[in-house]
Amino acid sequence: MLRPLNQGHLWLKEVVNAGDSVIDATMGNGNDTLFLAQLKASVTAFDIQEMALEKTRARLELAGLSANLILDGHERIKDYVTGEIKGAIFNLGYLPSSDKTVITQAENTIAAIKQCLELLVCGGRIVIMIYYGHKGGAEEKTAVLAFLANLLQENFQVMRYQAINQKNNPPFLVGIEKLRD
Amino acid sequence: MLRPLNQGHLWLKEVVNAGDSVIDATMGNGNDTLFLAQLKASVTAFDIQEMALEKTRARLELAGLSANLILDGHERIKDYVTGEIKGAIFNLGYLPSSDKTVITQAENTIAAIKQCLELLVCGGRIVIMIYYGHKGGAEEKTAVLAFLANLLQENFQVMRYQAINQKNNPPFLVGIEKLRD
Repeated sequence: MLRPLNQGHLWLKEVVNAGDSVIDATMGNGNDTLFLAQLKASVTAFDIQEMALEKTRARLELAGLSANLILDGHERIKDYVTGEIKGAIFNLGYLPSSDKTVITQAENTIAAIKQCLELLVCGGRIVIMIYYGHKGGAEEKTAVLAFLANLLQENFQVMRYQAINQKNNPPFLVGIEKLRD
Repeated sequence: MLRPLNQGHLWLKEVVNAGDSVIDATMGNGNDTLFLAQLKASVTAFDIQEMALEKTRARLELAGLSANLILDGHERIKDYVTGEIKGAIFNLGYLPSSDKTVITQAENTIAAIKQCLELLVCGGRIVIMIYYGHKGGAEEKTAVLAFLANLLQENFQVMRYQAINQKNNPPFLVGIEKLRD
């Protein structure tokens, strides 16, 4: 059985084709930006920390790939992306090996998810890795899950995939597919 | 994204090969027995209701397949199966279109899961569809999840896969893989 992050990548891979517009809402170390760029998608990636852009830029260069890297909060996605998207990915929490007080915040996260849901085409998917072991993580998890649980089942399939016998609050996955507008 | 039952079938299909010994702990209408027989596995299937055996026998005959159908409770699996198994499947709840007061009970279910875990080879998997909308279902769900959450993460991977925005308590999936003895 796949680990949650790998399952999330598979869910995106199943629907994202070369040239599709996709969003990495939380650039971090650039793992997901790189993954999406390897699918030959047109990637727009967001982070509020300059260090995230530097790391991601370096990894893309090394792989000979490119993406549109934006130094801004994902709550302003629609300021940069206005056309349809096929997919999006979120890693909630903090930038690994960086300042742990700079974390994603429920209000911004939900604003960003809402914008992605609006831009998403039918059949498109959003995957969200929820890290919640850090200070403030549990509150964000609760708020995000409450928001997602209220999405109409006629319009969205929302699935949760999680290890249930592990210590130390391992991250879990939520996948959303738009069924109809 | 797959529906939980289909994801559970996929998890079994990924590890069960022709000739492998597998268990359907809850025969019911024979859906899962048929699925396992189609993988050319050696299937032993349990149910306490004669009607379940009749339905399953008819479906197997129609498909030109066979399985070892046992009219007994799954809490006595080890009275019938003593060798290693590669997989097992459970559908908790009641036999569809039958007497809704005849339901699986937490005590028996957990006894059956324990026996399957003992018989399971490393790399083998157990998938459990948890229906809990019926009377008594919530108690069984809670007890089974508590038991599974206590399996040591060094020995077992235990994953939960569930829709989180649907009404009417739709069933969800738990998958268990034995990592080491």
